[in-house]
Amino acid sequence: MLLVTCLNPALDITHHVPAVDWAGVNRPTAVFARPGGKGTNVARVLRSFGMSVLLTGFAGGTTGTAVETELGRLGVPTAFTPVAGETRRTFTVVDGNPGGVQVRVALFNEPGPEVSEAEFTRFRRDYDTVLTNASVVVLSGSLPPGVAPDGYARLIEAANSAGVPAVLDTSGEALRAGVAAGPAIVKPNLDELGALVGSRLRTPAGETDLAAVTAAAAALRADGAGSVVVSLGPGGLLAVTGDGCWRALAPVISAGNATGAGDAVTAALAHGVILGQRWPERLRHAAALGAAAVAAPVAGEFSVADYEAGLRSATVSAYQDGDR
Amino acid sequence: MLLVTCLNPALDITHHVPAVDWAGVNRPTAVFARPGGKGTNVARVLRSFGMSVLLTGFAGGTTGTAVETELGRLGVPTAFTPVAGETRRTFTVVDGNPGGVQVRVALFNEPGPEVSEAEFTRFRRDYDTVLTNASVVVLSGSLPPGVAPDGYARLIEAANSAGVPAVLDTSGEALRAGVAAGPAIVKPNLDELGALVGSRLRTPAGETDLAAVTAAAAALRADGAGSVVVSLGPGGLLAVTGDGCWRALAPVISAGNATGAGDAVTAALAHGVILGQRWPERLRHAAALGAAAVAAPVAGEFSVADYEAGLRSATVSAYQDGDR
Repeated sequence: MLLVTCLNPALDITHHVPAVDWAGVNRPTAVFARPGGKGTNVARVLRSFGMSVLLTGFAGGTTGTAVETELGRLGVPTAFTPVAGETRRTFTVVDGNPGGVQVRVALFNEPGPEVSEAEFTRFRRDYDTVLTNASVVVLSGSLPPGVAPDGYARLIEAANSAGVPAVLDTSGEALRAGVAAGPAIVKPNLDELGALVGSRLRTPAGETDLAAVTAAAAALRADGAGSVVVSLGPGGLLAVTGDGCWRALAPVISAGNATGAGDAVTAALAHGVILGQRWPERLRHAAALGAAAVAAPVAGEFSVADYEAGLRSATVSAYQDGDR
Repeated sequence: MLLVTCLNPALDITHHVPAVDWAGVNRPTAVFARPGGKGTNVARVLRSFGMSVLLTGFAGGTTGTAVETELGRLGVPTAFTPVAGETRRTFTVVDGNPGGVQVRVALFNEPGPEVSEAEFTRFRRDYDTVLTNASVVVLSGSLPPGVAPDGYARLIEAANSAGVPAVLDTSGEALRAGVAAGPAIVKPNLDELGALVGSRLRTPAGETDLAAVTAAAAALRADGAGSVVVSLGPGGLLAVTGDGCWRALAPVISAGNATGAGDAVTAALAHGVILGQRWPERLRHAAALGAAAVAAPVAGEFSVADYEAGLRSATVSAYQDGDR
């Protein structure tokens, strides 16, 4: 079983409004309410591959119930730890009809419930219990308010003690502390990696500086991460591992929604661990899935045809400093 | 027991954002989620007077559960009829901190669940059952999609057959059909009344044309309404009844939130029926409560001190054509 932990899930509400009056009353022509948070996207992608998945984290209030209900409807098994606060909502206003030209998009992200020390302790107990049945654990997304920056680090230590490889996708201090705890794989994107190491990873012309990215990823390995896979958006993936460095590229077929593409990559990396894939094969899988996720309009979803096309067109090559 | 029917309740979500980026990502500093819809405000006000209340209507999905849960927390007994669709949300973005200067307010109102013929039939059965214990029924707010414009008319006919006086607060075709069914009281505001009778109720200078309002209200009585109480905002109330015409005025102490002031007036009118108040007394009650509701920041709430101050300062006088 793949254990996916999403400590701060969300209910993502989207309103499509043909021509928004930003200072008046609007009637959306289409309304969507979907489970959100990076971990929920990871779990949905893994379910699409027929994998046994358990999604854990915190859920509270009627919004928490809504998230659990929607995940159940999507066939994703959950075992959330209850929290006294209310699970967060994100609210997106799209100025335009679904499928039409989008003029502007405004997002409003609630912070999520404050998690008490006792609630985190309760989660730790639940986590330790389900960890015994897990082959891999994915820790994905931001930490909710109240959880200390070493929250993921403690979960990674527990996974390491149980002999379960951990895949970490987060940012900031949670990423820094998590790396030090020794996860099998971390998957920062370019901005997250740059913020962590405090160095520019783009050339003055705005292009990705692959040499700087490689150095930064190597620094994360030196700090404790087993392997580092950096997602570069349209620039594919750059992996720095104990077995070598690789660059994976999969041409994006059609631009849809980049949100969730990184989560698809994370899901593929965890899936690859379970399948025992070697790195080149695993990165091809991840790059193809990331490209297919961009082509899909909804985070956590992809079409099998796009994924298979991505597998055929993806290139994976050993990377050496100086390559572009 | 006062039976309050809110066919299209809502979960009202409000985000306060210090300086909104209308084309980017925002993190609200304060989030509120409250039960909404005109009928829920009426029920809350009546509960504040210690009255026995039952709130009915349609509730569906996790948003319906959220509305019921929040109403339970506020001490409002509910008996909603389940509906397959999802209860609507309203989403309000306030550009400014709570209590601070508000720069802009944008509202996004979901349409509400489509109610099927079978679901309305089910509601009618539930309504007929609880009607036997009701002393008065309040029908308040818009009809949800799928309910025919004569929806309230049919509920008023059932109330009349059961000998239960009905108070109606709605607009458009639902109001027109409802009036014809013979409710004891209708409470349009100036715009709703003007739209219904198709005549200008304001002078060219923008002031309320009391003579035109009186004529329009009298037309609604001729069409079937027992009494007509028109809420004029800061201009108070104008009542056209079988016992005469009155004007009630209560100075607003401090401007807070006009939303829900009309619902407070509707609640007071229904309350006055139960108490057996004569019209001048009933209108003083309604005008004072409307003014107190404006002073309160949240719809459905008011301070007892503001209400008592309103009772002391309110004036009620017989109205004759030509009065201003």
